[in-house]
Amino acid sequence: MNYILFPNSEAQQKITSRQVPTGLNLEETVRTIFTDVQKKGDQAIAKYTQLFDGFEGENLRVSPEEMQKAASQIAPELKQAIDRAAHQIRRFHESQREPILRITTSPGVTCWRESRPIETVGLYIPGGTAPLFSTVLMLGIPAQIAGCPNRILCTPPNALGEINPAILYAAQVAGITELYKVGGIQAIAGMTFGSQTLPKVDKIFGPGNKYVTAAKAYAQQLQVAIDLPAGPSEVLIIADANSNPEFVAADLLAQAEHDADSQVVVLSDAPEQLQCILAAVERQLEKLPRKKIAQQALLSSYAIALPSLDDCFAFSNAYAPEHLIVALENASDWSSKITAAGSVFLGTYSCETAGDYASGTNHTLPTSGYAKAYSGVSLDSFIKKITFQEITEEGLLDLGPTLEILAEAEGLFAHKNAVSLRIKKNNS
Amino acid sequence: MNYILFPNSEAQQKITSRQVPTGLNLEETVRTIFTDVQKKGDQAIAKYTQLFDGFEGENLRVSPEEMQKAASQIAPELKQAIDRAAHQIRRFHESQREPILRITTSPGVTCWRESRPIETVGLYIPGGTAPLFSTVLMLGIPAQIAGCPNRILCTPPNALGEINPAILYAAQVAGITELYKVGGIQAIAGMTFGSQTLPKVDKIFGPGNKYVTAAKAYAQQLQVAIDLPAGPSEVLIIADANSNPEFVAADLLAQAEHDADSQVVVLSDAPEQLQCILAAVERQLEKLPRKKIAQQALLSSYAIALPSLDDCFAFSNAYAPEHLIVALENASDWSSKITAAGSVFLGTYSCETAGDYASGTNHTLPTSGYAKAYSGVSLDSFIKKITFQEITEEGLLDLGPTLEILAEAEGLFAHKNAVSLRIKKNNS
Repeated sequence: MNYILFPNSEAQQKITSRQVPTGLNLEETVRTIFTDVQKKGDQAIAKYTQLFDGFEGENLRVSPEEMQKAASQIAPELKQAIDRAAHQIRRFHESQREPILRITTSPGVTCWRESRPIETVGLYIPGGTAPLFSTVLMLGIPAQIAGCPNRILCTPPNALGEINPAILYAAQVAGITELYKVGGIQAIAGMTFGSQTLPKVDKIFGPGNKYVTAAKAYAQQLQVAIDLPAGPSEVLIIADANSNPEFVAADLLAQAEHDADSQVVVLSDAPEQLQCILAAVERQLEKLPRKKIAQQALLSSYAIALPSLDDCFAFSNAYAPEHLIVALENASDWSSKITAAGSVFLGTYSCETAGDYASGTNHTLPTSGYAKAYSGVSLDSFIKKITFQEITEEGLLDLGPTLEILAEAEGLFAHKNAVSLRIKKNNS
Repeated sequence: MNYILFPNSEAQQKITSRQVPTGLNLEETVRTIFTDVQKKGDQAIAKYTQLFDGFEGENLRVSPEEMQKAASQIAPELKQAIDRAAHQIRRFHESQREPILRITTSPGVTCWRESRPIETVGLYIPGGTAPLFSTVLMLGIPAQIAGCPNRILCTPPNALGEINPAILYAAQVAGITELYKVGGIQAIAGMTFGSQTLPKVDKIFGPGNKYVTAAKAYAQQLQVAIDLPAGPSEVLIIADANSNPEFVAADLLAQAEHDADSQVVVLSDAPEQLQCILAAVERQLEKLPRKKIAQQALLSSYAIALPSLDDCFAFSNAYAPEHLIVALENASDWSSKITAAGSVFLGTYSCETAGDYASGTNHTLPTSGYAKAYSGVSLDSFIKKITFQEITEEGLLDLGPTLEILAEAEGLFAHKNAVSLRIKKNNS
């Protein structure tokens, strides 16, 4: 980790305004595969599945038998843990439903919003060494609570055409309605256009490597919505002289082990405490199976001493971290200072691992500073809020003259006429 | 208008799945201007302002004197109407604030969301023949209610460097904090990168021509959020044998006069009623100042007879109109059938003009079928919802074993260790 003592504002700005890989340079590859999938459907999807995942089978849909088998293939304690996590996530996301609130903006003019689920959502779960069943829960459960009728999941198979049973079990728990063994750009393209097998979806969710990220950005230009622009995962921790250095070090490493391009930052008003934390990081690092990945991530990470905790929060707001751990005793007293972050962990025992799996909050969060303008995934991500208005005769008679003046001032006489006709009819 | 009697499902699908201009072919122009603005800042912005708007002045910021003068330049009745509209919009958007709801997902584990305003928002208001002061209110008022500290407005000047006084007055009413005489791609580029004069913004809002639309899509790839993907404006009206044909015709024309590429659709279970509506459209069209624009729009518009009102709502949901007018007597009985629309107008007196200006709902809405996955602009568009979690020692002792199992199953041992350390400390 890079240790920096009291950087000036220019140096701070350099760190907070981190570069985001735009994926613009992958556009050619993405465009080629999209065009192919659009033209040839399943045939193209099968071709790329064979090329990238090594699976040569033709049936890309997970069968009910495969689903049933999964539950018997995973340890009972893992099943229980997945069930418990699902329960916690469900509780929090269910609380995000909104009641309908009818507002009389003027006599006879009533406005309100009603939520409707998005019809077809496509959830993407990456393959690779670790089976990300936790993300299946984080995306599938709010989609189910929202009432989205079609909840599709795509994930790449191994060369034998298998999906990790923990992913299949989590999909069952989260109520996924259709599962497909398709990954990469071809999965995003398939859900964008639809194919003989894959349904066309309205919105695509989920993490992925740079190819999937670029494919989602491209899909967004073709009328498919996406959850969030993606970037490397990150944590920022604010610690003081009383924070537990071992806990802080463990939280830094939990983030660092994700990916070589993860970034972790610790800020403190106590330089000597940062030294203790750095020492603890070195010690704990030695025992980690994913030591190499974490080491790589630490190269572009920072331990920064700042004059005061207020300065630490100001830095954090400029950085807008995906995860913010406030490792202070009176953490909740500081929460009003936070203006931009994906998810916040308050106090000694609120470790990021809790939010990653089972506190109940969603772990699909804005990275790379996107937290300045974006929220993480929530129930809101799976619904649309439609505005309604109901205006009575009296309501329009009262508001009508205002509408006529405004429409005329914008030069829109047909707009005005739609009001005038109704008023005249009433006055005649 | 194209009159279609009982189309089959294939013919219906052709109409509902309308093509969206992607703006991909404008990318070269957009990229050039963006690069220029990024490199040369104000100098490039002034160059393009001179080129596209004919204004050669150097000071692109609207002065307090210009603002003050505006109020005296517009008619008192227009001022009053703008004030009234602002009041109605304010009332409805203020009702969209959300209380903080703390949820105990398990003993000692508390999760909640808190809203924070986006720091700097950029509102774009197009120039052209009609001064769109109504959009200033629709974007500026929720930004002010959300508490966004910096509320920037960009709009192109005329060749003399003037902004329409109605826009300046609306900006005052809506509490815009900074106004700039910059339009087109150069405005979007300026707000994306910031310049000597223009601030860099976190999110860009507002309508525009195809150049502005393409520029916003490009800005989105450069880490700036945008309100909505844009497309031509549209209305869909559902009428039956008892609807007032003159009212329906007036509402169709109000939409048609917007732009030559606007689309209007009327559906009915009563073919003879559609004939009356079409006749009324022809009659009313003759008197419109914007007759030519409306005529053009009507060429690609539809009057469609379907077997039942249920079929009409199914068609409407597949079309996902920006505006949906339910011109039926018992309109609100049908509202639960609506699954996708931007804003809905229920009943005879709820004309679209009301929502365009002053019922209180927002008129910045998803077009081109985007209502299947997107909501219109609301208070939500100007805030982020940050999730918080606070976990007590007891809470972590209870949830910890679950977290350890899940982290281990995903192969993330540093994640597990962050929990184990805390549990061990407690047990020792």
